[in-house]
Amino acid sequence: MSEHEAPHPALALDETTHQRVRLAILAVLAEATECTFAALRDQLELTDGNLSRHLRVLEEAGLVELRKTFAERRPRTYLRLTRAGRAALRAQLDAMEQLVHRLRDRTDD
Amino acid sequence: MSEHEAPHPALALDETTHQRVRLAILAVLAEATECTFAALRDQLELTDGNLSRHLRVLEEAGLVELRKTFAERRPRTYLRLTRAGRAALRAQLDAMEQLVHRLRDRTDD
Repeated sequence: MSEHEAPHPALALDETTHQRVRLAILAVLAEATECTFAALRDQLELTDGNLSRHLRVLEEAGLVELRKTFAERRPRTYLRLTRAGRAALRAQLDAMEQLVHRLRDRTDD
Repeated sequence: MSEHEAPHPALALDETTHQRVRLAILAVLAEATECTFAALRDQLELTDGNLSRHLRVLEEAGLVELRKTFAERRPRTYLRLTRAGRAALRAQLDAMEQLVHRLRDRTDD
């Protein structure tokens, strides 16, 4: 492997969107216009703390936006992908697809 | 989202093989019969410590095997995928491909 070789496509994966929980959050939100914190937590089998931690990373990256409101006088948080979030997920899917195509025939016995 | 919904395919991703550095290690090793620690470290732009930490996870999972030898009286470590490692990478690629197909048309503007 000479040092002039292009960086491996696996290195192009972005940790913000590739990390397993964050990728699952982006995936669920891509399939819903909007989703409550509780529904997302339950569907992804996460704790409140774990989901909040990953949502903060996605929010700070501008990929997810939160809308806080009240339902029957109880606070309720709605989440949705931003336009940048949808574009970042598209880039993540492209990078994964590239890796699959490159490696597909390398995993036969 | 009803609670009877099947778990999201993103949840099927295995952290051992999905984690970004470990996926890159498996990818590079899938494309080489064998590879030295130094070549892998340089190609993936990692530190010795970071590469060792991830290799330990892959080795304990039985996905990578190390061969220690000497070249010009200097220790040299060779790495290769095990059969289980190749199968685990194939499963990882399948899971990524499933996610790409499921989400592809959900990321258009």
